[in-house]
Amino acid sequence: MTEFAKRVRGVSGDAIREIFAMMADRELLSFGGGSPAKETFPVDEIRAIIDSALSRNPDGLLQYGMTDGWMPLREAYLEHLVRGKGVRADIENVITLTGSTQGMSIVAEAFLDPGDKVLVESPTFLGTLMGLRKLGADCIPVKGDDRGIVIEDLEDKMKRHRPKILYVIPTFQNPTGLTIPEDRRKEIARLAGVYDVIVIEDDPYCELRYSGTPVPPIKSFDGSGHVVMVNSFSKTISPGIRVGAMTADANIIRKASDIRQLADTHGVNLTQEICAEFLNRGHMPGHLKKITPIYEERLAAMLGGISAHFPEECRFTRPEGGLFVWVELPRGTDSAQLLKRSVAEMKVGFIPGGPFFVNPEDGANCFRLNFSSNPPDRIADGMERLGSFLKKAI
Amino acid sequence: MTEFAKRVRGVSGDAIREIFAMMADRELLSFGGGSPAKETFPVDEIRAIIDSALSRNPDGLLQYGMTDGWMPLREAYLEHLVRGKGVRADIENVITLTGSTQGMSIVAEAFLDPGDKVLVESPTFLGTLMGLRKLGADCIPVKGDDRGIVIEDLEDKMKRHRPKILYVIPTFQNPTGLTIPEDRRKEIARLAGVYDVIVIEDDPYCELRYSGTPVPPIKSFDGSGHVVMVNSFSKTISPGIRVGAMTADANIIRKASDIRQLADTHGVNLTQEICAEFLNRGHMPGHLKKITPIYEERLAAMLGGISAHFPEECRFTRPEGGLFVWVELPRGTDSAQLLKRSVAEMKVGFIPGGPFFVNPEDGANCFRLNFSSNPPDRIADGMERLGSFLKKAI
Repeated sequence: MTEFAKRVRGVSGDAIREIFAMMADRELLSFGGGSPAKETFPVDEIRAIIDSALSRNPDGLLQYGMTDGWMPLREAYLEHLVRGKGVRADIENVITLTGSTQGMSIVAEAFLDPGDKVLVESPTFLGTLMGLRKLGADCIPVKGDDRGIVIEDLEDKMKRHRPKILYVIPTFQNPTGLTIPEDRRKEIARLAGVYDVIVIEDDPYCELRYSGTPVPPIKSFDGSGHVVMVNSFSKTISPGIRVGAMTADANIIRKASDIRQLADTHGVNLTQEICAEFLNRGHMPGHLKKITPIYEERLAAMLGGISAHFPEECRFTRPEGGLFVWVELPRGTDSAQLLKRSVAEMKVGFIPGGPFFVNPEDGANCFRLNFSSNPPDRIADGMERLGSFLKKAI
Repeated sequence: MTEFAKRVRGVSGDAIREIFAMMADRELLSFGGGSPAKETFPVDEIRAIIDSALSRNPDGLLQYGMTDGWMPLREAYLEHLVRGKGVRADIENVITLTGSTQGMSIVAEAFLDPGDKVLVESPTFLGTLMGLRKLGADCIPVKGDDRGIVIEDLEDKMKRHRPKILYVIPTFQNPTGLTIPEDRRKEIARLAGVYDVIVIEDDPYCELRYSGTPVPPIKSFDGSGHVVMVNSFSKTISPGIRVGAMTADANIIRKASDIRQLADTHGVNLTQEICAEFLNRGHMPGHLKKITPIYEERLAAMLGGISAHFPEECRFTRPEGGLFVWVELPRGTDSAQLLKRSVAEMKVGFIPGGPFFVNPEDGANCFRLNFSSNPPDRIADGMERLGSFLKKAI
């Protein structure tokens, strides 16, 4: 049979499929996914918005739309989620997306030739690592601590490697749940200008804060136009509607639009209208007030369960928001092997840490836990089971 | 500012933007676009389907979905639009798409390394040419006549160039409106197997037939698994909902899914459900019966107007369906220049032929007319104005 292109031969979801297949058992208590809680979906608001939109403007919604995005959403995003965060931007700085993955994929394609270097957090989102590798990029991990990227190491690597891009999830990071504080964000923006590095600021979780104080996006400190801020409605409204948006220098937006034109022409008008009206009707603040306590309770159940039941040698993060907690077992532990046993013996699943690292062995002793998809009592039960398993197993 | 990647430096929508900007004048009678008639959108059916779907399964619709596609649509597409056409396929041969452009883009990416050769019709869809060039492909035009691709030239070029892909729009082609008959389709499928060439059969217009007899897809003659059939709901239900689907060998579908996972994770569940239910409720046959006469009338108005008013030296196609008529002026005429004058003097617009060719000068004397977007009286008026202009101008 015809051979696939060299550049996509390594593109395979098999490893992830295998992990999820292992956890497909319906009796399994899985902390593996990254889905928002179904209890948070604003079904009634969505229904009302669709109903009125289809009455008001059916032809506009059902006809071809613009590659730059549905204008009402570009405007609403700009007003409610960009300028309000201290980002100076105008309509030509904004394009809507089919989720933030598309933003990452398009910006990476816009800037990366094979062999170009990209700095990433260590660990970082595994989908991004796969996407960057597909483009032939050379990913270089930057050191992190409990306040995210270590600036000295970042500057050192910018100097030494002359990367084209820094990819960063600054708020409630996937997989660690950690947040980069304001002082470091300023430094990241400044260094991007000094060393001419595009920063992809992937910020899908920023609205899901359960404690602490909001931090302005890196983009708000961007004096040189190097920062691309990517946002998503997947965690605040619904992932199934596939809507995100991105703010960047107008030249980058124009190139992104040209690339997107060839990828899928444009996004779905109707689901963009849902997001636009959700913002314009003022639903978002009340909605966030309603859903954050749900997640806060689940996070508390998870952290409480880990504290009470996990072996003392475990380290874990205490995020102020988002969907994930990150666990580090003693060096030498193999979390992928532990997962197999945990599934078989305890019916509890999680995501092994290796795939989140440029060099998977750096994270072999880690794993990610998601707290959004199960109610508190199931989380408490799961942490107890996992804790007693880990006490025996490590 | 940071430089864009070499591979996307040539990716620019500026030429197209310029053409459409020229035609943005609201008084202009434009035959430039490729949009279906807004009168054909099944608004009531869509509203009823959304309403019942959001009552029945809100959590499923709003949660993350599968990269392979919304299962009810994969099944309905297979049953109603694949097997009914004589294509042997099962669920693992099907993936849904955000429109057929995404199918072309993903399959091309799956198979093409820079420098790989692709055979295309001459002329062909300009968006595909741009997408192929972005991947560094070397596009080679195959000779055509009024029955589409000339098989002798196709085989000769398969032998000489060892292409990875043949891209073909077999039914009511964009831009010519022509259809490849059954005997040639069989030959295309056979030669694909013999010379190990992937055929991308892009078939978005096939349901829009106003006269003549339906022809089975190339995929129905595919004995070797080389044909990828790409379909779209943009011209039958709505382009704004962005739904298409693709049928291919299971290995190709799996690779397509892995690539798509990195591009945009998955499609919108809700608009896929619209298409699934539209098929399952049996709306499609009646809907096509309702909308094809609308287009038939518009096509007749266009062909009548051209016959009556265009200069005798003009040749033009007489399609049995689709959205486009193709006009050839005498060699040496420059349709891009004519467009500027036609817009200024007669307030009539069209798309110059050059960009539809691998070598744009091969089509400098041609242009494309769309008949779907204007009512018959406006079409008649436009052809009269354009005809009298051309009589003076060429």
